[in-house]
Amino acid sequence: MQFGLFHSVQWPAGSAQYDRYQQSLEQAVHAEQIGFESVWMTEHHFSRHGITADNLSLLSHLAAKTDRIRLGSAVSVLPFHDPVQLAESAGIVDQLSGGRLDLGIGRGNMWSEFNGFAVSYEDRAHRFDEAAQVLTRVWQSDEPFTHHGEFYDYDEVVVQPRPYQQPHPPIWLATAGGRGLQRCAEQGWNVLLPQGLQPDAVAEAIAGYKAELAKVGATYNPDNVVLARALYVADDSETAWNEVEAAYVAFITQARRGVATPGSTPDLNNPFDVESRKKGAVFGGPQDIIEMLHEVEAVGIEHVIFFVHFGDLPHERIMRSLDRFAQDVMPHFSGAAKVAGD
Amino acid sequence: MQFGLFHSVQWPAGSAQYDRYQQSLEQAVHAEQIGFESVWMTEHHFSRHGITADNLSLLSHLAAKTDRIRLGSAVSVLPFHDPVQLAESAGIVDQLSGGRLDLGIGRGNMWSEFNGFAVSYEDRAHRFDEAAQVLTRVWQSDEPFTHHGEFYDYDEVVVQPRPYQQPHPPIWLATAGGRGLQRCAEQGWNVLLPQGLQPDAVAEAIAGYKAELAKVGATYNPDNVVLARALYVADDSETAWNEVEAAYVAFITQARRGVATPGSTPDLNNPFDVESRKKGAVFGGPQDIIEMLHEVEAVGIEHVIFFVHFGDLPHERIMRSLDRFAQDVMPHFSGAAKVAGD
Repeated sequence: MQFGLFHSVQWPAGSAQYDRYQQSLEQAVHAEQIGFESVWMTEHHFSRHGITADNLSLLSHLAAKTDRIRLGSAVSVLPFHDPVQLAESAGIVDQLSGGRLDLGIGRGNMWSEFNGFAVSYEDRAHRFDEAAQVLTRVWQSDEPFTHHGEFYDYDEVVVQPRPYQQPHPPIWLATAGGRGLQRCAEQGWNVLLPQGLQPDAVAEAIAGYKAELAKVGATYNPDNVVLARALYVADDSETAWNEVEAAYVAFITQARRGVATPGSTPDLNNPFDVESRKKGAVFGGPQDIIEMLHEVEAVGIEHVIFFVHFGDLPHERIMRSLDRFAQDVMPHFSGAAKVAGD
Repeated sequence: MQFGLFHSVQWPAGSAQYDRYQQSLEQAVHAEQIGFESVWMTEHHFSRHGITADNLSLLSHLAAKTDRIRLGSAVSVLPFHDPVQLAESAGIVDQLSGGRLDLGIGRGNMWSEFNGFAVSYEDRAHRFDEAAQVLTRVWQSDEPFTHHGEFYDYDEVVVQPRPYQQPHPPIWLATAGGRGLQRCAEQGWNVLLPQGLQPDAVAEAIAGYKAELAKVGATYNPDNVVLARALYVADDSETAWNEVEAAYVAFITQARRGVATPGSTPDLNNPFDVESRKKGAVFGGPQDIIEMLHEVEAVGIEHVIFFVHFGDLPHERIMRSLDRFAQDVMPHFSGAAKVAGD
């Protein structure tokens, strides 16, 4: 099993954006040093939920500060981007990092962001489809590309730079199941499973993905799947939850607020159901963490990326948790040990 | 007088994009070390004229590789960008660099790029106006911003991150005169004068800018003007021109090709008029360079940014020319010496 970071540069009230960036970058650089294989950056707009509006630019910066780890976008929200410009920006990160980019794509789910950009929330699946089609087509060939669609138009363009990885960086689709898994199987995209998914839902997603792969005559490769999880390592489960619960509740509440549509009635004041979250997050002592990881490993997960920077959890605690993970958890997983020791 | 680099990461036939990025970054990092005050990156699309499609991402990368120099966009072509996303991306570079961003803006002049993006070349001034208005308004306040214009729509957005420089990074307008200078005076924008402008045209632009400043009750500050110039330093003028002429002609030809509209008939095969270019470029021995710089200093220029990476001029020659400049030219200009020695 191998591990990465999943980061959104949360910006809690009372904190300075400059400090939050510096701390987040330090966490990512440190993660590389202690044996993590990747860092993935979310894309968010207009809120404290993540000051990662231009996540490819953050990865471009990290490309200069790191040597080995993969740099992932998780995800680039296609309905907010001109897909040719996204191909250009992705190509630059891939070139500057010597081919370390993993490009996550998704249709987006934050109503507040669609509303801000005045991009139709209802049309997001259609926009995603057309943008994804453009993105992959411009990378399949270096012949001039012309496209006149419902949302995007181009005449005779050859996108530059070309990606360092040929013909393009691995593409990852954010999906929890169903049609998304079918598309991954059909398009050769990789699977990015969201944090919070309970272990039985993870098992179900893997089974579904395998079934879709079988339909196209392909077989399951665990390197094509990444599972996201919130992580916090302390001495034991009780200490861990005591130290993170408030920050994690604030994070989930913030996310709910962003997703909420005007028609829906998200009960933001509802008491947070810790018990139902316990199975979707990886909070505990080292032994708890090892068991929770073995549980998903058993259903075919070999890559887990950890959301460690949520709410107002202090930087020092995050760094301590990461060190604890590298010291007491990682050695129990062979793939990670191999990475840490290379 | 102080000096910077003006870079477009030219990509001549036969070269690898990865190498061109590495060399360009090395030139920028070296420039900081030998006393330059800034590096500015062009924005270009779809051609060998510059693999700088996402210049803010390149500056984000350079923010990690440098400590002191200002990082300039020269320019961000507003008609190709969602102005709120540009404000987000600029905010990220400004935060990651601790407030070192200078944001150049322009309406664009490469017909081939407008054609590629299927953005009306004729509408570019209108797009520029609306985008510039949005860009400055979202930075003037952190109250929710709503805008429904001809080209852009937003509902209740507060752009994040905020820039590190408050209320926003200095804005520079690419202009050679006339209405552009009037807008700079009225809006408090700085003036970015293009390379190739002959000394008398530079004098005329400065006089025009001063006249516009007088109309709004402001006075001229040389720190608000940057002049671009191609640079190559060798032993003497003849050697310099022998070593760069082919590369410079290729560069100018490439630029002409990008600007050419279908209705125009650019005579690309016309012999290149070296004599008419000699006054707009800074090629020569150290003494020639000093004289050419004094000529523009005399009309009020205190900041010159040098285009050093053109056509297929080899990296080693560019580095040698930069070192020669730092050694034999810079000490003759007090501002630059101060920077180099701090």
